[in-house]
This record gives sequence, structure tokens and C-alpha cells, in this order.
Amino acid sequence: MTEFIPPGTRFHDLPSPFAMKRGGELRNARMAYETWGTLNAARDNAVLVLTGLSPNAHAAKNDANGEAGWWEDMIGPGKPIDTDRWFVICTNSLGSCKGSTGPASVNPETGERYGLAFPELAVEDGANAAFEVVKGLGVETLACVVGNSMGGMVALAYLMLHPGSARSHINISGSARALPFSIAIRSLQREAIRLDPHWNHGEYTEELYPDAGMRMARKLGVITYRSALEWDGRFGRVRLDSDDRDEEDPFGLEFQVESYLEGHARRFVRSFDPNCYLYLSRSMDWFDLAEYGDGNVDTGLGRIRVDRALAIGVETDILFPLQQQQQVADGLRAAGADADFRPLPSPQGHDAFLVDIARFGPAVRNFLSTL
Amino acid sequence: MTEFIPPGTRFHDLPSPFAMKRGGELRNARMAYETWGTLNAARDNAVLVLTGLSPNAHAAKNDANGEAGWWEDMIGPGKPIDTDRWFVICTNSLGSCKGSTGPASVNPETGERYGLAFPELAVEDGANAAFEVVKGLGVETLACVVGNSMGGMVALAYLMLHPGSARSHINISGSARALPFSIAIRSLQREAIRLDPHWNHGEYTEELYPDAGMRMARKLGVITYRSALEWDGRFGRVRLDSDDRDEEDPFGLEFQVESYLEGHARRFVRSFDPNCYLYLSRSMDWFDLAEYGDGNVDTGLGRIRVDRALAIGVETDILFPLQQQQQVADGLRAAGADADFRPLPSPQGHDAFLVDIARFGPAVRNFLSTL
Repeated sequence: MTEFIPPGTRFHDLPSPFAMKRGGELRNARMAYETWGTLNAARDNAVLVLTGLSPNAHAAKNDANGEAGWWEDMIGPGKPIDTDRWFVICTNSLGSCKGSTGPASVNPETGERYGLAFPELAVEDGANAAFEVVKGLGVETLACVVGNSMGGMVALAYLMLHPGSARSHINISGSARALPFSIAIRSLQREAIRLDPHWNHGEYTEELYPDAGMRMARKLGVITYRSALEWDGRFGRVRLDSDDRDEEDPFGLEFQVESYLEGHARRFVRSFDPNCYLYLSRSMDWFDLAEYGDGNVDTGLGRIRVDRALAIGVETDILFPLQQQQQVADGLRAAGADADFRPLPSPQGHDAFLVDIARFGPAVRNFLSTL
Repeated sequence: MTEFIPPGTRFHDLPSPFAMKRGGELRNARMAYETWGTLNAARDNAVLVLTGLSPNAHAAKNDANGEAGWWEDMIGPGKPIDTDRWFVICTNSLGSCKGSTGPASVNPETGERYGLAFPELAVEDGANAAFEVVKGLGVETLACVVGNSMGGMVALAYLMLHPGSARSHINISGSARALPFSIAIRSLQREAIRLDPHWNHGEYTEELYPDAGMRMARKLGVITYRSALEWDGRFGRVRLDSDDRDEEDPFGLEFQVESYLEGHARRFVRSFDPNCYLYLSRSMDWFDLAEYGDGNVDTGLGRIRVDRALAIGVETDILFPLQQQQQVADGLRAAGADADFRPLPSPQGHDAFLVDIARFGPAVRNFLSTL
């Protein structure tokens, strides 16, 4: 199986056994992470970045890896998350395949990959695992925990389960619980993978691999990560050159937007483990802060204590719609935080935080500069 | 193969050969249709209803078929499309499998089902075929042509290709051309069907039938036909009773919204022919009135002549977004029509015209009452 771990990745061993929320435990599990900048003597300048479903821990270039990272324009000297001031930590999610232990990892008890024998994964498990990394780095209280998309869920779980672990929080295109439209999308993505005969109940191989299912899942993902508005301007109804079309296939690619999806899908299919995808996807559906609020999500949010918070979202996000970031800001404010809600008019939908640094950068920079 | 034709369906033989826009022709083709009410002596009270992708011609109960139809609350005596006044015609789309000739029909030249040997289908072909039905019923000029969703495209093609064929037009959740988000969704639906090994390049059988692909396509359709807003209120995060869950399947249905999609999919899979689905779906991607406007869609709309027009859409429609109905209204107004645009706040998304009769009914009734 392809390994997906960037060079320079660091590892932190989790306590063994590491108990999982929904039952079961992991042994000899580890978390992959990277850091930028220097922890100061007071140990009060650490910022934790929690990622969306698929990124690795290489958010930006650093001494260990000079390749550009997935948030290159956000993290670095003088950048919005300024590593001249902040000691930045980014973890690869528990359950992922990019260095942290997950379903694609070898189970030390069997010597085989976990596959579906991996215990059920909850967002809270990812939060607890990231907490261990931060603790292992000697940080008791983070200056800020930043979470994007799924990472926004993980961040809220982190703050809920570890009171006093952070003074502030930036929630970017995240939410306090999954709602049915996003559940439906993710359910369909998982179904596409599971329907692929090569998925084989999680027992695929390099040779018999669920490429088709992963391709479908990724295409559906990309459709919901961007926005109709962006695509109207970017692709319109432009067709592919005849050189790029298969004239033999009556239903083959014809429009640029189809080719764009195909390109995204091809790049993703073999770079993310299908079982890891299933586990992380399902963990998002399960996430609901109402579990900590007597069935009410706002009550749950109200039990989180931070001094300052910022929730950012975009109007064109159909997967984590703006009302969900509004809810996070309102809930944390009701709990006593100085909390702002920043809706941004980015056309790029849910993925805007990755690409619209012109808008997200200043919002993040301004918040951090006042800490 | 299952037959999908409701009892009481009437048929109109198309001219043979019937030339298709993109090449090829049909022989001995027919259109399925139904009617309600009575054509008056002046033959000036006919209203044509053009459907979305999947409905049959049985829009409402009538003398030939007492079963409720898919637009039962809209068409009938005293209803918004009042059959005490109007002679209403509804056609099943050319290329469908519900009585009109399509890829599931037998090719008279071979004695076999067309399958992928059916000529490429354009929205314009559907318009020309519906025009033949209307002409065959002795109607030279319709009082109104009403088109829903795909039918909104067919209606615009009808008016473009047959000047003077209607005095007015109601475009409901339709558009003058396909945009990339909807193209992407439909492309993915078609890919799901084509990826199913049982699709077999269109040569499936009752026994080896692309159930899985059709199920995926339908679920994705339903996700885009409704809205997140509706589902938040309707399903929230409610889970299925344990009786309705398969505890053996770690990724099986868990939330009500997943069960809702599954139910929709199961009902659809064997009630619509997969090849017909592919052809009709692709026809929508191709549709672009800019072809009639020197590359400009507004110029194309400007070549349509009607006295009165109404374009209705809903704010929560992600598949045929509101701006597209605004564009239709603006374009027809620029062409000299007395044209209104009516955005409705229905929560049900693209499908609202089927279910939110409380809002759509009065809009349609008011327009027709002033004709």
C-alpha cells in the first residue's frame, strides 16, 4: 500500500492503551505532526492547527520539509499565523493515513492492517489524540486552537473535553454538529466506496483497489467543497478540446467542469486510504455537541470556556453552511467568550479557507494580533 | 423489461422519419400524452405542460385514469390550472420510458431495444415532438406553455423553434442553459450508472440490471432536488430505530435522512430506464439558448416572442438556482413580453413546485386568470 507520509513528519506515541470513545482501544498508536516557530520560555505562544478530512500535517514548509504545504500562505514568518511570534503545531488526524494511526495502519496485535477491525472512530478521539501531542510538546495551555472544516469539529471537542487547554479558538468553516444535508452527502460518498466490488469489505489490495468508488466519492466531495457561483465564472459552459475527449465514449467527458472533477479525483484516489476515508467521514456524521448539553447543541457550546473566539465561514458553503459558524460564535459568546462571527463573501464555497487567503488571512491575522 | 406506461395514456405518432437535432432520425416514433378539460370552439384555451426528467404524462386524474397524478393539486376543476376553463395537455418526454419513444423502446428496424443505438437526444427534439402532439390535437396556438425543471428548458426550445406557437409561458424552476454545477451533478449521476458493471454499455437485462448505479444516481438527484433547510427541520439528526438498522453493517443506514434517500432510490431504480435516464440527463447539459443568440444566452432569449410570461423559482434551489429564472424573465421582457419574475421562499428546493402548492398554486392561478 502506498505510504502517504511527507518527509520530515514527526511522531508522538499515544498512551497505550488509548481508549476510544465508542469502545475499544488502540495499542502503540501514534500521531504525526509538524511544528513551526519556537515555543517561548513561558510556553504560552503555541497555536494548534486541526485539519479537514484529508490533509497531512505538512501545513507549510519548515526546516524539516521545504516543500510548500497545504496552508502555505497562512503559516510562516510574517504570515497571518506568524511563526515569528507563534509556535505552531499541526497534527495529522487520528484515523488518517498520513502518519497518524488509522485503519490503514498495522495492528500490532495481528501484524495485519486494521481495516475494519479498527475501533469506531469519533471526532472526540481525534481531539484526545491531538491533546496528547500538545501535552507531549510541553504545552499546558494553547494560545489558540484553530480548526478548519472537520478540524473545527475536532477543535470544539478538544475544548469541551479539556477545559483550560486553550485561551482562544478560531473555528473556520466548522460546526458544532453534523446536519442532514452534509450527512446525506457523506453517506453517499461512503456508499460509493462500499459499492465498489474492489472495496471488498475493507480488504482491498494495491491490485484490487476501489478506484472507481474513491473517484465517485472525491468528485462528490469536490462538488460540495466549491460553489456554483465560482464555477459559473471559472468554467461556464466551456467544452474540452477534441484532443481531450474520447469520441468513442458517448457519455465521456465533454465540459471543462467534468475534466476538472476527473483530475481532482485521479489525484486523490491513490493518495488517501479508502477505509480511513470511511472512518473519518462517519466520525463527522456522529459529531454533535448536544451530547454535552443535555440534548441541546447551544447548551453544549455553552459549556466550552475560552476567553476569545472567532468563527469564520463563507456564504457559498453548502456543506458547513454559514449558520453553523454563526451558531458556534453565538454559543461561545453566550458562554462568556469574547466571540466574533465573520461571514466572508468568498465565492469558493467550503474550500475557501484553502484558497481565498486574501480574505481569510487578514481575518486570522487580526484575531491573533489582539491576543 | 418493466413497462412504465400508466393506464389511459394516449399516443400520437410522430412524422416518420422524425429528424433529430444532432443527427439521425427516428422511425415510427410516438409520443405519450394525456389531456384534461375540453378544447373550445376557438381552439384558444389549450395549455401544454412539459415535465421534468422523470414524470409520466399522468399529471392528474382524468376520465381515463382515476389515480392521482404527479401534479394532482395543480391541475383539475377549480384548481390553479383550472380544467373548467383550460384544455390541458401533458406529454411524456421524447426519450423517456413512460410511453414516448426512447432508448428503452424497440427499434423497428432491428426488432431490438435501441439502447445506445438511439440517436443523440437534444432538448430541442423533445420540444419538436411535443409540438407535433399539440398540432395533432388541432391546436395552432397555445394559450400557455408551462415547463417545470427540464420542461422549462423544453418550453423555451418549443417557443424558440416554433414562433407563434403560444401566447404565454410559465417557466418553473427552469433555465435557458445548463451551468457547471448542475452539469457536474448530472455528469456524476451518469458516471454512477455507467460504472455499474451491470450497465454493460447499455445492454443490461432484468436479471443483470444496474440497480446500484441507479440507486446512487437517484440519491444524488434527491439530495440536489431538495434543500438543506428543509432537511434540518424534517430530519435533523434523528436516528433510525434499531429495528430498521443492520447492526452487522458498520457503515449501514443510521440516520433518518439516509433511510429517506434509500427509500427514494429503491422506488426509482426499477421504475425508470437507465439508458433513458442517461439520454435525458445529457440533453440538459447540452441545452443552451445562446446557440440561438450568436453565443449570448440573453440574445437567444430575446428571439422568443410571447405576449406574457412568468418565471417562478425558489431561493433554496441549488440545481436550477433562482438567477436562472430571473434571467428567463428578464430576457423575455427585453424581447417585449410582459414578463414577471416570482421568487418564492419555499424550503423544498428544486422540487418545491411538486410539493409547495400553497405557494406555486396561487402564482400559477393568478397568471392564468389574467390571460
